[in-house]
Amino acid sequence: MNFPHLIYGGDYNPEQWPEDIWIEDARLMQEAGVNLVSLGIFAWSKIQPTQNEFDFDWLDRLMDLLHAHGVNVNLATPTASPPAWLVRGYPDVLPVTDTGATLWHGSRRHYCPHSISYRKHAAEIAARLAERYTNHPALKMWHVDNEYASGVTECFCDASAAAFREWLKQKYSSLDRLNESWGTTFWSQHYSDWEEIHPPRKAPAAINPSQQLDWARFNSDSWLACFDEQKAILNKFSPNLPVTTNFMGFHKPADYWKFASHEDVVSNDNYPDTFDPEWMVQSGMICDLMRSLGDRHPWILMEQSPTHVNWRQRNPTKRPGVMRLCSYQAIARGADGVMFFQWRASKAGAEKHHSGMLPHGGTDTRVWREVKALGNELPKLDSVLASQVKADVAIVLDWENWWALELDSKPSNDLKLLPQLYAYYKPLFDCNITVDFAHPESDLSRYKLVIAPNLYMVNDSTVKNINRYVENGGNLVMSFFSGIVDQNEQIRLDGYPAPFREMLGLLVEEYAPYPETLTNTIRATNGRSFECMLWSDVIHLKNAKAIASYEQDYYAGSAAITHNTFGKGNAFYVGTVPDKNGMEWLLEQVCRMADIQPISTNAPAGVELLQRVNGNSSFIFALNHSNEKVNVPIERRGSDLLTGTEINGSVALEPSGVAVIQLK
Amino acid sequence: MNFPHLIYGGDYNPEQWPEDIWIEDARLMQEAGVNLVSLGIFAWSKIQPTQNEFDFDWLDRLMDLLHAHGVNVNLATPTASPPAWLVRGYPDVLPVTDTGATLWHGSRRHYCPHSISYRKHAAEIAARLAERYTNHPALKMWHVDNEYASGVTECFCDASAAAFREWLKQKYSSLDRLNESWGTTFWSQHYSDWEEIHPPRKAPAAINPSQQLDWARFNSDSWLACFDEQKAILNKFSPNLPVTTNFMGFHKPADYWKFASHEDVVSNDNYPDTFDPEWMVQSGMICDLMRSLGDRHPWILMEQSPTHVNWRQRNPTKRPGVMRLCSYQAIARGADGVMFFQWRASKAGAEKHHSGMLPHGGTDTRVWREVKALGNELPKLDSVLASQVKADVAIVLDWENWWALELDSKPSNDLKLLPQLYAYYKPLFDCNITVDFAHPESDLSRYKLVIAPNLYMVNDSTVKNINRYVENGGNLVMSFFSGIVDQNEQIRLDGYPAPFREMLGLLVEEYAPYPETLTNTIRATNGRSFECMLWSDVIHLKNAKAIASYEQDYYAGSAAITHNTFGKGNAFYVGTVPDKNGMEWLLEQVCRMADIQPISTNAPAGVELLQRVNGNSSFIFALNHSNEKVNVPIERRGSDLLTGTEINGSVALEPSGVAVIQLK
Amino acid sequence: MNFPHLIYGGDYNPEQWPEDIWIEDARLMQEAGVNLVSLGIFAWSKIQPTQNEFDFDWLDRLMDLLHAHGVNVNLATPTASPPAWLVRGYPDVLPVTDTGATLWHGSRRHYCPHSISYRKHAAEIAARLAERYTNHPALKMWHVDNEYASGVTECFCDASAAAFREWLKQKYSSLDRLNESWGTTFWSQHYSDWEEIHPPRKAPAAINPSQQLDWARFNSDSWLACFDEQKAILNKFSPNLPVTTNFMGFHKPADYWKFASHEDVVSNDNYPDTFDPEWMVQSGMICDLMRSLGDRHPWILMEQSPTHVNWRQRNPTKRPGVMRLCSYQAIARGADGVMFFQWRASKAGAEKHHSGMLPHGGTDTRVWREVKALGNELPKLDSVLASQVKADVAIVLDWENWWALELDSKPSNDLKLLPQLYAYYKPLFDCNITVDFAHPESDLSRYKLVIAPNLYMVNDSTVKNINRYVENGGNLVMSFFSGIVDQNEQIRLDGYPAPFREMLGLLVEEYAPYPETLTNTIRATNGRSFECMLWSDVIHLKNAKAIASYEQDYYAGSAAITHNTFGKGNAFYVGTVPDKNGMEWLLEQVCRMADIQPISTNAPAGVELLQRVNGNSSFIFALNHSNEKVNVPIERRGSDLLTGTEINGSVALEPSGVAVIQLK
Repeated sequence: MNFPHLIYGGDYNPEQWPEDIWIEDARLMQEAGVNLVSLGIFAWSKIQPTQNEFDFDWLDRLMDLLHAHGVNVNLATPTASPPAWLVRGYPDVLPVTDTGATLWHGSRRHYCPHSISYRKHAAEIAARLAERYTNHPALKMWHVDNEYASGVTECFCDASAAAFREWLKQKYSSLDRLNESWGTTFWSQHYSDWEEIHPPRKAPAAINPSQQLDWARFNSDSWLACFDEQKAILNKFSPNLPVTTNFMGFHKPADYWKFASHEDVVSNDNYPDTFDPEWMVQSGMICDLMRSLGDRHPWILMEQSPTHVNWRQRNPTKRPGVMRLCSYQAIARGADGVMFFQWRASKAGAEKHHSGMLPHGGTDTRVWREVKALGNELPKLDSVLASQVKADVAIVLDWENWWALELDSKPSNDLKLLPQLYAYYKPLFDCNITVDFAHPESDLSRYKLVIAPNLYMVNDSTVKNINRYVENGGNLVMSFFSGIVDQNEQIRLDGYPAPFREMLGLLVEEYAPYPETLTNTIRATNGRSFECMLWSDVIHLKNAKAIASYEQDYYAGSAAITHNTFGKGNAFYVGTVPDKNGMEWLLEQVCRMADIQPISTNAPAGVELLQRVNGNSSFIFALNHSNEKVNVPIERRGSDLLTGTEINGSVALEPSGVAVIQLK
Repeated sequence: MNFPHLIYGGDYNPEQWPEDIWIEDARLMQEAGVNLVSLGIFAWSKIQPTQNEFDFDWLDRLMDLLHAHGVNVNLATPTASPPAWLVRGYPDVLPVTDTGATLWHGSRRHYCPHSISYRKHAAEIAARLAERYTNHPALKMWHVDNEYASGVTECFCDASAAAFREWLKQKYSSLDRLNESWGTTFWSQHYSDWEEIHPPRKAPAAINPSQQLDWARFNSDSWLACFDEQKAILNKFSPNLPVTTNFMGFHKPADYWKFASHEDVVSNDNYPDTFDPEWMVQSGMICDLMRSLGDRHPWILMEQSPTHVNWRQRNPTKRPGVMRLCSYQAIARGADGVMFFQWRASKAGAEKHHSGMLPHGGTDTRVWREVKALGNELPKLDSVLASQVKADVAIVLDWENWWALELDSKPSNDLKLLPQLYAYYKPLFDCNITVDFAHPESDLSRYKLVIAPNLYMVNDSTVKNINRYVENGGNLVMSFFSGIVDQNEQIRLDGYPAPFREMLGLLVEEYAPYPETLTNTIRATNGRSFECMLWSDVIHLKNAKAIASYEQDYYAGSAAITHNTFGKGNAFYVGTVPDKNGMEWLLEQVCRMADIQPISTNAPAGVELLQRVNGNSSFIFALNHSNEKVNVPIERRGSDLLTGTEINGSVALEPSGVAVIQLK
Repeated sequence: MNFPHLIYGGDYNPEQWPEDIWIEDARLMQEAGVNLVSLGIFAWSKIQPTQNEFDFDWLDRLMDLLHAHGVNVNLATPTASPPAWLVRGYPDVLPVTDTGATLWHGSRRHYCPHSISYRKHAAEIAARLAERYTNHPALKMWHVDNEYASGVTECFCDASAAAFREWLKQKYSSLDRLNESWGTTFWSQHYSDWEEIHPPRKAPAAINPSQQLDWARFNSDSWLACFDEQKAILNKFSPNLPVTTNFMGFHKPADYWKFASHEDVVSNDNYPDTFDPEWMVQSGMICDLMRSLGDRHPWILMEQSPTHVNWRQRNPTKRPGVMRLCSYQAIARGADGVMFFQWRASKAGAEKHHSGMLPHGGTDTRVWREVKALGNELPKLDSVLASQVKADVAIVLDWENWWALELDSKPSNDLKLLPQLYAYYKPLFDCNITVDFAHPESDLSRYKLVIAPNLYMVNDSTVKNINRYVENGGNLVMSFFSGIVDQNEQIRLDGYPAPFREMLGLLVEEYAPYPETLTNTIRATNGRSFECMLWSDVIHLKNAKAIASYEQDYYAGSAAITHNTFGKGNAFYVGTVPDKNGMEWLLEQVCRMADIQPISTNAPAGVELLQRVNGNSSFIFALNHSNEKVNVPIERRGSDLLTGTEINGSVALEPSGVAVIQLK
């Protein structure tokens, strides 16, 4: 990505409006500082109204118009919503549920990723667009499809079954290996012919978990194959333009580690629920994931809402200043662009009650004023461009483990991954310690501290990587129900958690999940007592020492949280879910041992601090989420890029106020 | 309708019983004062046991028997439950869900209204019945089918798809107009051929709302077409007999304004849940709707339960006196007949635990005694016959707005129409102010006050009608989220609520729905403070004045409820949902300004008062819903038709007591 | 059944493990005292990997190995999980839901019991196994299929429809009788051709209840037919070996009275939820059912979990001692064997997180130690073998009534049978009064007290049997909503409860169910007052006397619980659901009148006492479910078989402690 300014703009759907509105749009974009729009995302039927008819004239005029107004284009392949003629002519395009019900035309994303007809026509429209616009001066980026693996996450049709079989053949070569990997001796599920294999369609009881797991992998790969197919076409015509597709935060059905490695730039759609008082934590966590997916390279906030969305049960309005806070949070956490869905609020269709940069009420609205003000403020941050955010702490996230952990038939099916990640993330957020997310097979040595919550499924490479990380001097926090199964979701025998027992210095004899209404307590070695929830591991210490022990139940007095030294490093094991206070206490101990420093140790409550660095340039972002005016101590000298004022010891922030301090 | 007495009777299903029981039935009907029964509603398979076999003999005997006992007949076309032979011979009769599942024989209403086979056979049985019985002396009314649009409200089969396309062709003439009206540029939904259009079958995401709205219109029209087809046949044979079909209160799937205009008399099935302490308010509201649908002409309470029904999770018994209260409430609110489902409680089938006028336990039961007593009391009210109930207040109800408002993807999907209507209706009920319901395009000038809760979708004619009503001196209360979209559910641009901004004297800049757990407060200009819920409009006053303002959130201090003078009239706007006290306060202000008088200003709590008028005759109905003996002040002189006593200043009512006072 | 020792063992699935593990398994089984394993339950695809290929070699070796280690075999027909080749070759094997969705391969029990292909192949594999192993010295029992009527309880495919028609033809001979029995005049449901009849597939409204009832009977019979077909084959080859199939406690879809009468020995799978503080009551109730199903003959606890299961939302660990308590409870209540699912915890598949006798962690685990200790303790109880448990009290349970009572469209659809049975069972359990379950048509004369909760549906034979029981001197407690319908679920007319009015000495005029949030109170003749819930019968006394009366609502003062003498017996009627205290008071009165004695009158709380008797031998089982050490008074002399100590007045029990006292 190579833009001279922070990107500012949004999805632009001019096909919904008469052409005279376009002129006004372009003028107002200029007024609002818009420098990039995502164009054509849902324009397939406009470009190709019938199978043999293509209409690019309107798009030609638009591209020229935008260019004339200094607005660049992130041009989309419009393949997220196949036209009615395609569905009618090729009914195999339509997806099918696990009970055999067809999903029909009338909304969007009504396609099976394995449909030959869909894939052929999608490739064709992508090629036509690329061929026609690759040299247009407004074109700066390609946007493939839209929000892959949403709406339809998997298709159970016969074509999908055939594709699944092909994928399995590629993976396993022989049926023997598949039978072995899936454990098909259980419940007499042995396959003697590839054709006997089906997707995990609705069945009378719990479906083979290894089959479900491969099905999840296969579906993620299928969406990626759709992307790859189009990217190859776009690259052919536009070898020098970046290609992206918009992510959706922690989106379970698509393995974004794989996706990100195929993209030129990571982009994301972020719609925090601002009714939730912790929305900024959840949103920050998503920003950190995006930065991590792109290996700390700048990413783009591709979509956010100017104010309300329309798809929640009750849709909050973003209060004054909140949209600006959301925008600066993204930049603070590594984004080089802030965009919206969408430019002009629709007047028809399913999303007409979704807000736009330009509301139904026009320019005499609070929202427009805030949108315009932000667009005119952002150029002050040009120097931030391409700087990076660094973190000393990583939380391990592996999509495959996520899928495996949340399959059915577990000791506690209320154990879900994201709340556990969040339980570790939030105390760090609250004290302004920046966190990356890391794939368990990635190079962990750059982190002082690695946290691995519920890393249930680990392959041999992960086992080696994590043990080595500690041995070489790393600090690890691993939580319960980790290291239990291999990549086929088969138990790693020989005592839980078999591959990490030595490193952790303990043995987990058994799990004791709790009923919904009960908790336990743990007592830390310093005498403090905390509530804990959901689950207890019953731990036998080998080399490890308890730093907190259970106080109730038949295993009272035994270790709940342990510490072990292994090689040059430290391994902590957390056999339960401590409450908020317990987690804060724990992370304080751990951070002290790992020598982790927050950006500031005495920031007022509700203030979010981040740092971006570019060579010798360093920028502190300070965001005030509280309703109070606060003074944020800044220990180094610098000046606020937004106001130009010099910083001397501290910066004052109004409620919802923001400062971006370039350090000296 | 031209009956010499108030109608009294019920559904009669003699086909469930051996013929010797019929004699006893007829005798007991006489004893109970029954003068009309609805016959044959579910007798299709009895009349036509196979396709080519008709058996009318039993029905002939029954009609004669009833006539001999002075019981008239409301003869039904038995088309609500197609026989098994029809389903087997013509499987296209069966309805299909949006996921493609067939709904089978075994209960009732298992037919697709668009099935050619069904329609043909339904028309034939109607014609056979009409031909045979039109001149029978017992026959006084035709009852078409039963509870249209219940059980199955819509069918998604291919025949329905074809019928939908035909309906759309009739409506739009050209695909261009359809594409424009449905906003199909959104999400690439453009249609280039009529055959591409389908019902809104299950889809991956939110379905085009204009398509959904037309689908709702189409289905309502389809049920009406079924009715019309049969009515035309019945009219041909029996040009002088009234034709009805039984309504189901506020039944969303069928636009009863349209239905009522095709009927000769409105009739309704009413089954209040007497576990609900406000059942009499809900039931009263339904009665008022029925009267309004028939333009104040007398209507018939076609079905109520003598005591319990069988289809709720827990089915309350009607306590002593409650069935009588229900019956008089209907008459008080304009009914000229009171009927039951059903005469004799069934001994088999899905409704055997539904009560009958004649219980399983026979005549030595409380229920029978109450049924018989009421039947023998009603003739005292002959003078009430054909009198009317007048109202100065109307609440606007438009089925199409109801459908549109409750489509998905709204700012708050917890906003539902009926609770909002009810919130305005109940305070008026409580102080004995009679209320009509009115279609927004109807003549509103006869009302002193018109209340328009959440009139979200308005066509141009409605816009003109409502603005003109106020301009000409009317008093209007309009609530939030009104005037937002046109008849295609497309936004009326230019600031909310665009078509009413001038009349209301304000601009709504944005909506701020609340989360489920939060409320706000409003402070009235007189200093009182009320809680409010669900939603705030953020209002900018133009000519209007605030009469209450918000106290919390970022728009604190701005107007919540406003008053504007427009032309000769007054327009109130309510930007939120006030609590009970707030609503009572508001309506008190409004009624004072509109000069609305209750029937009595000092009736005791729990007493329901209504007035029927016929030329110079005037009748006050007083119903005591409380558990206390009360004295109801009656300012004019008269006599109680039930007891014959003269009224002098007041009437005393026992708990559950009723008086019907003919004024002098 | 003819075993020299109490059975101890579990399901054994060696096909999931490499052959070298088998040797270790056999050795450890010996070590743990295992004397029987259930083999081959899910081995179909292992034995018959493709249609024309059979592999018995591995099974031969296993049988020999087990025999060599003194482990006997309960050999299973592996028909609960059809192989993939069978499903692919004969797709009619797959079951279909009421909405027409197919249930696929991938879990287990994916077969339609009416599939010809399935039945043919199941019979073949059963015959092959029987032929080959009938003379093997390890073989001691046959285990048919696994947990019939679970996963899939009913299939709606066309083959099932055809089978249903055949079953109906057998039952009714003529369509006229079917129409009469189903009450098809209601809602025009008359059938004029057998082919018009379908399973109760998804329909628009409540489906004919008599049709639903016959469908329930038919499905139960179909599963039994599957069993019978295999049993006949096994009996042919092994005329002297017992044949069983494992039950699932109170499992509604299969009429276990019928099943048990076709089995040689009753066996059961019992998985109490030990998070529930009343688990031992629920579990005891299941044990008592099993003993009753087998007419008091010893039964086998075929499956229990060593510790946790994997299929609940949160799966409790069995705390130390609890597995042993569960095991002795089964023996105390008549079991001659205690087995587990499964021997070795799986490493793959849907149940890998279900516990095994041998955990993933191996022999150095609490669970293994407890399993081994129990296996080595049980031989001390050899003298208990074949002794029986006797009871003076029976609770009536009829599967057909259960089905009928819980069909929809009842006065209160929150009335469910099991909670009502439990409400009577628990107070008796708590004071150590042993209870049988009895079919209402069985010989009741051996019981001093018979309790009939909600015996809604009764055929003429039941009516006669129960009335005669009382007349001849029995003591009966019957609760509300009994005697209401006949075997076709048609009302027994002439005042509720028509067939029992004389015997009970009363008339129920009407039912008054309560809303969810309300209760009533009853006052007993001795002045005590109790809460009551769910329902009131409004009762008119004839000969009966009230022993408790309602205090609220319109029937206040009328009888709630009554007593009548009829012939030589006593009939109590309970018109409501008394709370716990009320039920204890009631049962105390009743037991006093019926002269029922608990095993001990002064056992400490939390102690469960049972007695087994064999000729002159008598054994008292004492189980301490409390967390306290207790002293249990034992009035007769004896010695504890587990410790060998003499009992003198009392036995001391540790928390979770057990004593088995052979009386002198």
